[in-house]
Amino acid sequence: MNESQEKESLRLKLRHIIFGTSSPAGVLFDQFLIIAILASVVAVMLDSVQSIHDAHGEWLYILEWGLTVLFTFEYVIRLWASDRPSRYAGSFFGIVDLLSVLPTYLSLILPGANYLLTIRILRVLRIFRVMKLLSFMSEANFLAKALLRARRKVAVFLFTVIVVMISFGSIMYVIEGPASGFTSIPRSIYWAIVTVTTVGYGDITPQTTLGQAIASLAMITGYAIIAVPTGIVTAEITSAMSRDRYARECTNCHLHEHEVDALHCKRCGEKLPDEEADT
Amino acid sequence: MNESQEKESLRLKLRHIIFGTSSPAGVLFDQFLIIAILASVVAVMLDSVQSIHDAHGEWLYILEWGLTVLFTFEYVIRLWASDRPSRYAGSFFGIVDLLSVLPTYLSLILPGANYLLTIRILRVLRIFRVMKLLSFMSEANFLAKALLRARRKVAVFLFTVIVVMISFGSIMYVIEGPASGFTSIPRSIYWAIVTVTTVGYGDITPQTTLGQAIASLAMITGYAIIAVPTGIVTAEITSAMSRDRYARECTNCHLHEHEVDALHCKRCGEKLPDEEADT
Amino acid sequence: MNESQEKESLRLKLRHIIFGTSSPAGVLFDQFLIIAILASVVAVMLDSVQSIHDAHGEWLYILEWGLTVLFTFEYVIRLWASDRPSRYAGSFFGIVDLLSVLPTYLSLILPGANYLLTIRILRVLRIFRVMKLLSFMSEANFLAKALLRARRKVAVFLFTVIVVMISFGSIMYVIEGPASGFTSIPRSIYWAIVTVTTVGYGDITPQTTLGQAIASLAMITGYAIIAVPTGIVTAEITSAMSRDRYARECTNCHLHEHEVDALHCKRCGEKLPDEEADT
Amino acid sequence: MNESQEKESLRLKLRHIIFGTSSPAGVLFDQFLIIAILASVVAVMLDSVQSIHDAHGEWLYILEWGLTVLFTFEYVIRLWASDRPSRYAGSFFGIVDLLSVLPTYLSLILPGANYLLTIRILRVLRIFRVMKLLSFMSEANFLAKALLRARRKVAVFLFTVIVVMISFGSIMYVIEGPASGFTSIPRSIYWAIVTVTTVGYGDITPQTTLGQAIASLAMITGYAIIAVPTGIVTAEITSAMSRDRYARECTNCHLHEHEVDALHCKRCGEKLPDEEADT
Repeated sequence: MNESQEKESLRLKLRHIIFGTSSPAGVLFDQFLIIAILASVVAVMLDSVQSIHDAHGEWLYILEWGLTVLFTFEYVIRLWASDRPSRYAGSFFGIVDLLSVLPTYLSLILPGANYLLTIRILRVLRIFRVMKLLSFMSEANFLAKALLRARRKVAVFLFTVIVVMISFGSIMYVIEGPASGFTSIPRSIYWAIVTVTTVGYGDITPQTTLGQAIASLAMITGYAIIAVPTGIVTAEITSAMSRDRYARECTNCHLHEHEVDALHCKRCGEKLPDEEADT
Repeated sequence: MNESQEKESLRLKLRHIIFGTSSPAGVLFDQFLIIAILASVVAVMLDSVQSIHDAHGEWLYILEWGLTVLFTFEYVIRLWASDRPSRYAGSFFGIVDLLSVLPTYLSLILPGANYLLTIRILRVLRIFRVMKLLSFMSEANFLAKALLRARRKVAVFLFTVIVVMISFGSIMYVIEGPASGFTSIPRSIYWAIVTVTTVGYGDITPQTTLGQAIASLAMITGYAIIAVPTGIVTAEITSAMSRDRYARECTNCHLHEHEVDALHCKRCGEKLPDEEADT
Repeated sequence: MNESQEKESLRLKLRHIIFGTSSPAGVLFDQFLIIAILASVVAVMLDSVQSIHDAHGEWLYILEWGLTVLFTFEYVIRLWASDRPSRYAGSFFGIVDLLSVLPTYLSLILPGANYLLTIRILRVLRIFRVMKLLSFMSEANFLAKALLRARRKVAVFLFTVIVVMISFGSIMYVIEGPASGFTSIPRSIYWAIVTVTTVGYGDITPQTTLGQAIASLAMITGYAIIAVPTGIVTAEITSAMSRDRYARECTNCHLHEHEVDALHCKRCGEKLPDEEADT
Repeated sequence: MNESQEKESLRLKLRHIIFGTSSPAGVLFDQFLIIAILASVVAVMLDSVQSIHDAHGEWLYILEWGLTVLFTFEYVIRLWASDRPSRYAGSFFGIVDLLSVLPTYLSLILPGANYLLTIRILRVLRIFRVMKLLSFMSEANFLAKALLRARRKVAVFLFTVIVVMISFGSIMYVIEGPASGFTSIPRSIYWAIVTVTTVGYGDITPQTTLGQAIASLAMITGYAIIAVPTGIVTAEITSAMSRDRYARECTNCHLHEHEVDALHCKRCGEKLPDEEADT
């Protein structure tokens, strides 16, 4: 076995460990990575607290550099072990992996850019890889598919809600005016969003009687129309769940809608065909 | 071809471009219009911000007049090209189109009426025409139909909620009194609406122990009864979706709306055609 | 026809007008009553606003007495025309009718009891009678039945939520203490209710880091568990709607689940029995 | 009958009264216990209110010790009467029972630990035993099962929501900075949780235009995605309810869970018995 073959064999082994989840080494690698990511995210959070930064800033700085070197090493290995490096680099996780290490290096060149370091918190997105490990993937896919099917209806709803918010904001700008904090239309629309979504900070509130009446209308609107997206998503999830359950056809009487654990047709007693693999 | 015929032909061509969406010219016209509307809405918003008005007011004024002339021209063309001008003028979009241009002209005659100009923001409603273009219409119709069927149940719910709000408001007016900001029954009802819809500005809050107990009751009520409109709308959407799914037609009596496992027409007993492939 | 018979005939006629809705006189009577009730409720509301009370208090006082005499007259007529006066007097609407007029008379005897007059706003409950007129009754009954079936599950949910709120409130009392406004356990529980129901006044907010972490947990809990009552009520409404739709049985093949407009069995083509009257 | 037998017989009788609900003595015991628990919880709450503590602290102290002795006695009896004492002591209610009495004794040894006494409020958890009495158990089990089935989907949702909150918090920390109260990333994440769950205290609010735009996005996100857990839970409850409804048993293979229109067992093909009357 020459050097090139050895290298290829190592690459395949690494690919198996890094991208796979079936081998014990792959699981161990993933678990170690999760701990490193969580440690790094907590370190970024704590470092942003002034008192902790003053007291333990040095240790956090060392930890940060240690983890950055580790993640850089991981990124390079991933690039090298990947079947198609350019595809990995351009993928969602490839970009997140790069953004996880880049800010730390840039902070050396651009010393003033403290806020740049906050981008590192995006490392938390890497945790999504853990789902692969915990086999939550099928549930996530199920939800993603249901939401995908609902997307056009939800888009119509959101579009309508945004127009409603713009209308309420503009009306309140005219009624309340700058005295109550409705200093401009964009700010009034911000108030309308705060109100219709039922968040209700209370930083801007109507002061006139007419303004409070219109605001009441906005609140009741927001309170009632939340039913619409909920209804859409619920209907899609219900339908997706029943589709999962009833997807075979009887070869004798052509009845659909057999439950997933049925062996015989519930109408004619004919044996049902074997379940097909879920796509 | 005489002048009158030429004019008629031009009218038909314009009608096709303005009201239709199938021809490339119609699509281009719609896209141009959407950009003009968005530009105009953003201009109205920005002009309401004092600092932007002071710095760029002149440019916004020129843009505003340019767009107003454009929209006026469009309105006149629509009137002229329309099959029945009076019907267009009286329709929802006809009125919105008129309200989009009128305030700018009126601001010349009534110089003090600055707030009048805010009506122009209603131009945003014209965006709804874009739905026609993006073929979101069928989804919008689907939702509109489901909500229409739910309207009587939702009305009963809203009526009950409003009575609950009036009752809570009146009780709190008696318990808390003017000292806590519950200065009148209408204002107390405003508080009840803010609370039951779970908006919770915090501009008026109960101060006494009994008041806080009643407020807690109001909050839990509001938190729990949101389930009712959600349930109504979800049931209607679910039922509408399953009706859509089971849409075969009887070859004998042409009835639609057979369930997926029906073999015979539920009205005349005729055997139904085999199910078509799901698209 | 003697005097007693005449009286009896008048009583029957009045009963028909007051309690019925089918005759034109009955509809007219109901419509007149609705206007009177709304006028009276609005008068009570406006009278509670200090500035309006000062400016138009006299007129409102006269209107109030006029309407009180009218409602008293109506109450006496109802008592007299009723089949069983004692049952009417003890019924929900009988008590509301009495509470609608009593405070005005009591305010003559107990001059200081201003707040007593607020009870008159309960007149708004009399509006529920209008539902009889607008034939919203069947929708209201439908919803009431569905909610009645859901009541045990919702009770279990509310019980759990209240225990959760008490637990969060007690924990926060220990963590935050009087300095942040958590001065006692009842007040901390009030905060927990404000938070878990997502109302969020902001009159009491956690100041310590640990307190904000626990509060975050309370918010996410409240945000997520709203799904439970919504799910319960939705399932009941969906099931009630489909029960309404599929309630007959084929006499030939005993299939249930025919839609309400089906004439023939969807499986075997047998004619379905006539629909039974809805109970 | 010797002493040992007498003791054994007493133990069995006590076990029947304490752990059972069928005998009149058992019901009476449970009812008495509920009153004692409620009295004790209310006493802990009232004692935390400074003014009540000052005025009636002595009486509450006596009541507290009386109830603590009672609960201690109950705990010892439960331990003694239990079939397997160690299992009871280690069970959820066993630990709650111990935590209900321990703090009072500890407050004698550790006089400063006032807050320790707040743990006693966990006595409220003992109320859950009342459900056994009120036969709410089946409803609670039903809901617990449905939520258990939904747990993986809800976990995926909560995980996604938390990542969204961390992202929004970090972005706002960069945009708004300490001037608006976004002093650190953990505090900004606290703000994001307050906003996305639509609680909206208003203790930290965005001040810059860009910050308000991002906050608006966070609000609309939070407002719309509440549809997801609601949809999941609703679908599970709906499916659980319909499973409950269609519960016939095959006479051949004893399979439950046939749908209402099934004629043959879906597992073995045996003809199913006629549907029983709906109870």
